[in-house]
Amino acid sequence: MIKVFSPSTVANVGCGYDVLGFALDGIGEEMIVSKREDGQLVIDEIIGFDLPKDPKVNTATVAAQALLDDAGSKQGFSFTITKTINPGSGMGTSASSSAGAVFAVNELLGRPFTVDQLVTFAMEGEKAVSKKAHADNVAPNLLGGFTLVRSYEPLDILTLPVPDELWVTLVHPQVEVKTTDAKKILKKQVDLAVAVQQWGNVGGLVSGLYESDYDLIGRSMVDVIVEPIRKILIPLYDEVKAQAIAEGALGCSIAGSGPSIFAFSRGEETASRIKSLMQSRYDEAGVLAYTYRSRIGKSGVREIK
Amino acid sequence: MIKVFSPSTVANVGCGYDVLGFALDGIGEEMIVSKREDGQLVIDEIIGFDLPKDPKVNTATVAAQALLDDAGSKQGFSFTITKTINPGSGMGTSASSSAGAVFAVNELLGRPFTVDQLVTFAMEGEKAVSKKAHADNVAPNLLGGFTLVRSYEPLDILTLPVPDELWVTLVHPQVEVKTTDAKKILKKQVDLAVAVQQWGNVGGLVSGLYESDYDLIGRSMVDVIVEPIRKILIPLYDEVKAQAIAEGALGCSIAGSGPSIFAFSRGEETASRIKSLMQSRYDEAGVLAYTYRSRIGKSGVREIK
Repeated sequence: MIKVFSPSTVANVGCGYDVLGFALDGIGEEMIVSKREDGQLVIDEIIGFDLPKDPKVNTATVAAQALLDDAGSKQGFSFTITKTINPGSGMGTSASSSAGAVFAVNELLGRPFTVDQLVTFAMEGEKAVSKKAHADNVAPNLLGGFTLVRSYEPLDILTLPVPDELWVTLVHPQVEVKTTDAKKILKKQVDLAVAVQQWGNVGGLVSGLYESDYDLIGRSMVDVIVEPIRKILIPLYDEVKAQAIAEGALGCSIAGSGPSIFAFSRGEETASRIKSLMQSRYDEAGVLAYTYRSRIGKSGVREIK
Repeated sequence: MIKVFSPSTVANVGCGYDVLGFALDGIGEEMIVSKREDGQLVIDEIIGFDLPKDPKVNTATVAAQALLDDAGSKQGFSFTITKTINPGSGMGTSASSSAGAVFAVNELLGRPFTVDQLVTFAMEGEKAVSKKAHADNVAPNLLGGFTLVRSYEPLDILTLPVPDELWVTLVHPQVEVKTTDAKKILKKQVDLAVAVQQWGNVGGLVSGLYESDYDLIGRSMVDVIVEPIRKILIPLYDEVKAQAIAEGALGCSIAGSGPSIFAFSRGEETASRIKSLMQSRYDEAGVLAYTYRSRIGKSGVREIK
């Protein structure tokens, strides 16, 4: 038996649609996994939210099955998952389950696979919920910190440095945005001139992380392609973003495919102030919202006691 | 009177169309600039190639005029330019003149402007030849090393680290490719999925420079947008690239808008071997070609004796 903590993650990070992501620190889900004799994958319990327990549908078991198939193993496992973040938040909750499951199963099998290989199995869990085997959430989930999916074919994932004073604040307004719908509204083609701006910013953000240049990180968090389209699905987006920036946020954008909004700050104090502001604004508007703040999580999924 | 050396530069660098560029080491042009009393900008002589001396057309004087206008100065200057790289090479020869001129004039005026400001004046020289005020050549020209134009509005140029063992080989097959034509054949729109690949690679290349990870630099030099279109204007492109890679090049792509081809290598020896190969292949085919190899130039334009 093993108990693991699997962090929540934020993909896209402004300019880095489909390639950048980072892990949160101490925010995520717990999972207890144990071997069973009958060769089945069974989800005993999901605590916190009403999610499908069917092993062919739940991302934890889909990802675990991908690992077992590759290992040629018929071992069975039981899963008890304690979720703390509402599904559909844009904070990588499906990825948390996929990553947690493959990490735990790999440990219980005696680590036949490297962390990089685990990413490919966890991607199968992502495929089950969003039709495409994305890596931008499961990569920071498993590797921790900031990650860049440089390429999918072949899969090439880089770990980027995490500046010590970089904090993130998140607000999850409780409106439903399905990843598949958030994909659908994007235009399939973009202006080359606009794409150039985007990759200038990706380069700037990567440089900012290496230099611990907080101002550059903020300046680079400009998304001229995805945010202008997706933000219409998020109530009060422009207002909440403007307020966060006015309060000292380095930058602010959509977490994953939304509806959560995240803001970077230098230091805990600003991050906490922005958290209060975001909470107040949605409370005032009568929109149920959850807020979080943490450092960037340097560790990915890990065993806990 | 001042004598300056202004390096040649390579823009785009594979994945970084319109944003990345680097300077060459010791390859470029020399310029002698002196004050004159009549308030005119005059090109006394251009040694090496037959280029327009009209001060309203030559990039050196156009850029110098932009500086003088901003300074509100009526000072006149004479220019003698010694060019060593054929025009239309894709190695930033127009930028070398623009950058050299504004650097020299700024020195002779007692440095009223910072290097960053000089970039904006040099961009006016670029505008005179390519209709758009590009910064991707003049930035490394003035700042040296590797540069990233993160944004044009506002202009935000970053200097990236240069790995010590990074060498570049260039071949300039003597066929004419005008920058304006090379722009025209590009598609104005690109698939979002393809743009994502491109910014994954830009992020990877920036990371590779910080990490001195030569293999990552090579893997990231993938251009899925511009190279497939522009390479058709360059004779033997695919063959020369494949040969360079087989010989140990980290990566190979089009210098600026071509027709020059550049390859990165780790260390001088590989760079020299690739130079010989490139030269032989074009000689064999009866295409006049010039080849070069150098380190990445850590310094930009500078005073020489």
